[in-house]
Amino acid sequence: MELGMIGLGKMGLNLALNLTDGGHRVLGYDPGNVSTSQFETKQSLEEVVDGLKAPRVVWVMVPAGDVTEHVLNDLHALLSPGDIVIDGGNSNYKESMRRAEHFKDKLIYFFDVGTSGGMEGARYGACTMIGGDLEAFGKIEELFRDVSTDNGYLYAGPSGSGHFLKMIHNGIEYGMMQAIAEGFEILEKSPFEYDHEQVARVWNHGSVVRSWLMELTESAFHKDAKLDEIKGVMHASGEGKWTVETALEYGVPAPVIAMSLMMRQRSLEEDTFSGKVVAALRNEFGGHAVEKK
Amino acid sequence: MELGMIGLGKMGLNLALNLTDGGHRVLGYDPGNVSTSQFETKQSLEEVVDGLKAPRVVWVMVPAGDVTEHVLNDLHALLSPGDIVIDGGNSNYKESMRRAEHFKDKLIYFFDVGTSGGMEGARYGACTMIGGDLEAFGKIEELFRDVSTDNGYLYAGPSGSGHFLKMIHNGIEYGMMQAIAEGFEILEKSPFEYDHEQVARVWNHGSVVRSWLMELTESAFHKDAKLDEIKGVMHASGEGKWTVETALEYGVPAPVIAMSLMMRQRSLEEDTFSGKVVAALRNEFGGHAVEKK
Repeated sequence: MELGMIGLGKMGLNLALNLTDGGHRVLGYDPGNVSTSQFETKQSLEEVVDGLKAPRVVWVMVPAGDVTEHVLNDLHALLSPGDIVIDGGNSNYKESMRRAEHFKDKLIYFFDVGTSGGMEGARYGACTMIGGDLEAFGKIEELFRDVSTDNGYLYAGPSGSGHFLKMIHNGIEYGMMQAIAEGFEILEKSPFEYDHEQVARVWNHGSVVRSWLMELTESAFHKDAKLDEIKGVMHASGEGKWTVETALEYGVPAPVIAMSLMMRQRSLEEDTFSGKVVAALRNEFGGHAVEKK
Repeated sequence: MELGMIGLGKMGLNLALNLTDGGHRVLGYDPGNVSTSQFETKQSLEEVVDGLKAPRVVWVMVPAGDVTEHVLNDLHALLSPGDIVIDGGNSNYKESMRRAEHFKDKLIYFFDVGTSGGMEGARYGACTMIGGDLEAFGKIEELFRDVSTDNGYLYAGPSGSGHFLKMIHNGIEYGMMQAIAEGFEILEKSPFEYDHEQVARVWNHGSVVRSWLMELTESAFHKDAKLDEIKGVMHASGEGKWTVETALEYGVPAPVIAMSLMMRQRSLEEDTFSGKVVAALRNEFGGHAVEKK
C-alpha cells in the first residue's frame, strides 16, 4: 500500500521505516520539517495529500493535544470522502470519538490507534490497538499486520476503543512500574547488600514477576548500578491521570493506579504544602518541633 | 549428588522430579506420608537421614510456619556437623536468620531459598534466590543450577537474604497483579465491549506490559471469558503483609504494595465496619439514608 506518515519523531520515523521494510510506499512529513533520506518526504501536508492516490491513507503520529488537533483539522479540510485517517498517538479517547464524528460528516474514516512497545517496537514490531469502522478496517488491516509484532494488533471495537485500551494499558503500566520501584527501594534500604542488576536478572528467569518492565529494570541497573546519575522525578504524559478519571467516572476502585499517579505527582515537588500543614498541626497540639526553612 | 526432599506437595514433588531428571538421587519423605513411584521415598525423616551419606544435603519444602519449624527442629536433632539444610519454602526471613544461627551452633549449614515460578517452574525450571554461607554454597550450587531455568538462580548474600528477596518479589507481584486487575475492571465497566482474552493476548505481543502475569491473565480469560465461575475473593499467604511491615520498618513509602494487600483484605469481607461507620456519620450530619440489614 501507500500512505502518508505525518510526524517523524521517535515513533513516527520508526513506524515509517518499519512500514517501508514491509514494502509500503511512505510519504513522510513532519510539522517541524524534519526530513530523512530513508523514504520520500514532503514539505507540507498538502504535498503529502496530493502525492497519494485516492482513497488515501494518512497516519498521524504527532504529540497528543494541540498538535494533533491542528494536524487533524488540516487533514479534514484537505482529504476527500473515502479517505482514511489514523491517529496513532496518545490522544484522549473522548477526543477521538468526537473527531471520528467530525470526519464522518465528510465521509472520511477515522481510526484511533494505541501504539505500545516504545521506539524499538515501532521500528521492529509494535503492539497496536485499533478503534474505528470495522469494514474500513479491512482496507488497512495489512498495515497493522506489518507494523506490529506477530499477534500484536487488535481491532478493539468502534471509535474510541483503541485509545481507551491504550489508556488503560498505560494505567496498568504505572501500577506495575511503581510496584517494581517500591520493591527495589525496600531492597536498597534493607540490611542486605543486593546487586540490583543481578536481582532483576534472576527475576527475569523463571520468576512470577518476569516481564519486559523487569528487563528494562535490569538494563537500567546495568548502566548505573545504584541509579546515582538520575533524580527520582517521575514525569507523566497524562494517560495515568485519564485512567484514574475514568475509574472515578465508572465507579471502579483503582487505588493502585491512583497511588502510582499520586506518587509521580509527589515526586515533582521538592516540598509539599500538605507536609507543612501536618508539621504545623503537630506543633500546635503537641509542641513537636517544626523544621524551619 | 544425592539429597533428601522433605515435603512432596505441589512444589516439593515437582522439584524432586526436576532434580531426578538432572541425574541427582532423591530420597523423598512427606510428613503426611505421601509417596510416589517416581523416585525413592522413605517413611520418616530418620530414614532419609540414615539413607544419605555424610555430608548430607536435605531440602525442606513444606508449608511455612509451624510445619517448617517442626521439621527443621527434627533435622537439627538428626543431622551432623557439615551437613546442609535448605529451606525452599516461603519462611519469614527473620525466622530464617534465627534458624541459621541455631544450626550454626551444631556446625550445620542452613540456606534460606526463595523459590518462584509456580509448579511448572518447579518441574521444568524454577527461579531460586539463595541466602547462606558463601563457601558452603559452592557445594550445592549444582543443585540450583540444575533445578533452575537458565540464569535463574542467584546467591543473594548471607542468611536471610534469600527469603527477604522472595518476600519482596511477592510484594511486587501483589502490586503488578492488582494493577492488571484494576485495568481489566475499568475495561469491564467501560462503554466498550472488550474481549478480555484478546486484550491480554495483544498486550502480550509487543506492549510495555507484556509479562508472565499477563500471559496467565490471557489463560484465565480463555477458560472463563468474564470469570463468571469464580468469586473475587483474594486470599494471601503472608509475604505481601511482611513486605509492607518491612517497608514500614525501614521507612520506605510503598503505597502500591500496601494498597494491594489492603484490597485483598477488603475482598475477604462481605461488609465492613468502616462502611457502617461512614454510613452512620452521613446519616448523623446530613440525614442521608442508611441501608438497613
